Amino acid sequence: MTYTAQMLDTYPAEINLEHDRLSRVIDALTSCAQACTACADACLSEPADELPRLARCIRDNLDCADICTATAAVLSRHTGYDARLTKAQVEAAIQATKTCGDSCAEHSEQHEHCRLCAQSCQETEQALRDLVPHLTPSGAGVQQPHQAAPQQGI
Amino acid sequence: MTYTAQMLDTYPAEINLEHDRLSRVIDALTSCAQACTACADACLSEPADELPRLARCIRDNLDCADICTATAAVLSRHTGYDARLTKAQVEAAIQATKTCGDSCAEHSEQHEHCRLCAQSCQETEQALRDLVPHLTPSGAGVQQPHQAAPQQGI
Amino acid sequence: MTYTAQMLDTYPAEINLEHDRLSRVIDALTSCAQACTACADACLSEPADELPRLARCIRDNLDCADICTATAAVLSRHTGYDARLTKAQVEAAIQATKTCGDSCAEHSEQHEHCRLCAQSCQETEQALRDLVPHLTPSGAGVQQPHQAAPQQGI
Amino acid sequence: MTYTAQMLDTYPAEINLEHDRLSRVIDALTSCAQACTACADACLSEPADELPRLARCIRDNLDCADICTATAAVLSRHTGYDARLTKAQVEAAIQATKTCGDSCAEHSEQHEHCRLCAQSCQETEQALRDLVPHLTPSGAGVQQPHQAAPQQGI
Repeated sequence: MTYTAQMLDTYPAEINLEHDRLSRVIDALTSCAQACTACADACLSEPADELPRLARCIRDNLDCADICTATAAVLSRHTGYDARLTKAQVEAAIQATKTCGDSCAEHSEQHEHCRLCAQSCQETEQALRDLVPHLTPSGAGVQQPHQAAPQQGI
Repeated sequence: MTYTAQMLDTYPAEINLEHDRLSRVIDALTSCAQACTACADACLSEPADELPRLARCIRDNLDCADICTATAAVLSRHTGYDARLTKAQVEAAIQATKTCGDSCAEHSEQHEHCRLCAQSCQETEQALRDLVPHLTPSGAGVQQPHQAAPQQGI
Repeated sequence: MTYTAQMLDTYPAEINLEHDRLSRVIDALTSCAQACTACADACLSEPADELPRLARCIRDNLDCADICTATAAVLSRHTGYDARLTKAQVEAAIQATKTCGDSCAEHSEQHEHCRLCAQSCQETEQALRDLVPHLTPSGAGVQQPHQAAPQQGI
Repeated sequence: MTYTAQMLDTYPAEINLEHDRLSRVIDALTSCAQACTACADACLSEPADELPRLARCIRDNLDCADICTATAAVLSRHTGYDARLTKAQVEAAIQATKTCGDSCAEHSEQHEHCRLCAQSCQETEQALRDLVPHLTPSGAGVQQPHQAAPQQGI
């Protein structure tokens, strides 16, 4: 159990995204970052003759972990919500979970940790894709600044 | 639902810690990092006359988020497990969750997000404290290097 | 003095980017992440009546710090270099440094730390923009996988 | 060139540490985090028969990178400076740079990237050790809370 949903419900300003959808994405991202960090390390513990084949998977795990962690932090901040920035980071996370999910899927049959990690990446990628249409597209950024919470009523 | 416990169960080398205990700590840390990031941002959205009083809380939130994220990553790696390093980082996380939990608790009655964040910090601090006796103490580090998974059988 | 350039020169595989350009971007990103973290904290230390006006700046600082740190890590990995992933993360960092640079620039006259942070953001944004044309565009990804270092000769 | 020293000089509140010493530590930490990330990836690009021997080094690199990044962020925040928290995190970073420096030093003759990374770890460890006596020891924490910048004059 995480506090993500409850934290959203007690937020003192308006959030322009459905709470359920947003908390699902954040939880998927933090869980995926953990799975990727653990999968990279599990790969490093595989027998010596397996290691070279796993080098790319390890690297994709590390990129995905770093990007998911940063994206979860960005989505956990709602003040001054800037759709262009959020969208660009979400797009990077979609690419990272896709790349890592594909890498891990190649080793799913040999390594159970890769199968689980691929599953976590795919779920996260899907949750991110579901979020995109709800982020105000860059083009409509005209009205964005005025929606920024900390600028209201100051 | 996270993948932490399942990732531990599919780890290809031995882990010198009870899986349940370890996965509980990792999940508490990632959840606490998220709650702290969200709480810092919620504080920034409070009315102007509340902000100065919350400055310290925001700073403690940010420290706690960074430290919990790093600690979760360190605990998610088991290869070459080094008790001194793990213990030192766990001690830092105990201090960070204690400091932030105390800070947030001061504002629990005024701000529901601070109450929730304090609760997450306290739970995480407790989970970390429960882990410490199970980490081989620094003094016994003599036998540590030989337990390092990737060095065995290579 | 950082080790970035030297680390690039001792890399055991080929790197498809000019070393000078790449090390400049990485150094700009890590420096910008530090400046943003420090600027957020400096804003929190400003007099009470200044704080509300700085809330958005603080939030942009935090987003920019997280995104620059993740981007520096991704660019510091060259194994299995995936142009689409790298490009998406670089685009997110361009947006983050632009957003934060603009936010800080609004307070440059009142706060010297905002002026310095805006300068760091602008330099980093420029370094990132200079890198983009040298990242193989997504469309040309066909030949990408074969350039991935760990997949060669395996 | 980084902005660390300049950011310190424009900080709007008092900092209870010598600016030169502090900025040197922060710069060493961010540089070390980058070197460790790059060294882990360089290790992954070494020939297949070298990889198993480097697994532990890679893991130590990753731990050290995560811990140095978090420590640099904590030291870049001066508001509400809490000596116990700062000291605990600095101690963890001393252990991380020591462990990783030792690991990399074992491969210094074979791998130039390990030699450079070991050097960065050792410099950072030394800079951190030089800082410790200047952090008010935990025992003297009595007067700490009152030094916290955001609590003054509020």
